Amino acid sequence: MTTVTNTRELAHPERDEIRLEGILHALSDPMRMRVVRALATTEGELSCSYFVLPVTKSTTTHHFRVLRESGVIRQVYRGTAKMNGLRRDDLDALFPGLLDSVLDAAGRQAGRLGDGV
Amino acid sequence: MTTVTNTRELAHPERDEIRLEGILHALSDPMRMRVVRALATTEGELSCSYFVLPVTKSTTTHHFRVLRESGVIRQVYRGTAKMNGLRRDDLDALFPGLLDSVLDAAGRQAGRLGDGV
Repeated sequence: MTTVTNTRELAHPERDEIRLEGILHALSDPMRMRVVRALATTEGELSCSYFVLPVTKSTTTHHFRVLRESGVIRQVYRGTAKMNGLRRDDLDALFPGLLDSVLDAAGRQAGRLGDGV
Repeated sequence: MTTVTNTRELAHPERDEIRLEGILHALSDPMRMRVVRALATTEGELSCSYFVLPVTKSTTTHHFRVLRESGVIRQVYRGTAKMNGLRRDDLDALFPGLLDSVLDAAGRQAGRLGDGV
């Protein structure tokens, strides 16, 4: 099945348009952090439907959009699936060590509070 | 002059009440980041009046409150001055390397965009 959706390009900031405050805002939500932590554990991409978050579908879509528009993730349509991947290369080039230290902090907190992914 | 204000204790989260999402939210605002970067360059405390931010006084007060309530800074009254200090010990104990990597990222962005403190 070919639909308009399949070929739609989603808007992403270029590397030099990514801002630290946008990244930190994107990562300041527990649901979005959960998505980012899952993406960080995989080499490839994960579909939106892979994630079952305890929020509505529209809220889930909102969270992915915030992550995409801040430059944290890249979203592409592959067939009917919207696939998500961390923009690790861009983030590491702009802010070396930042993503890893945030992921480490999230892992520590999840371990401490017992609310890990 | 002795006033009630002088002895008022401001509410702070204990170390184990500090949450990563609160820290990231607090740091996701450029004005608050400016305050944190200035505090990071001093060993001691800085008064609120030290900071001249391009926002109203009430907005400035709001920013300091967000930083305090998230656990990023400690605020104490000394005489008539409200003094501010980074809670570096608490942050480094909870999330080793996080504060430094965020400060490094902020410095890189300020250098790149030419909007340093």
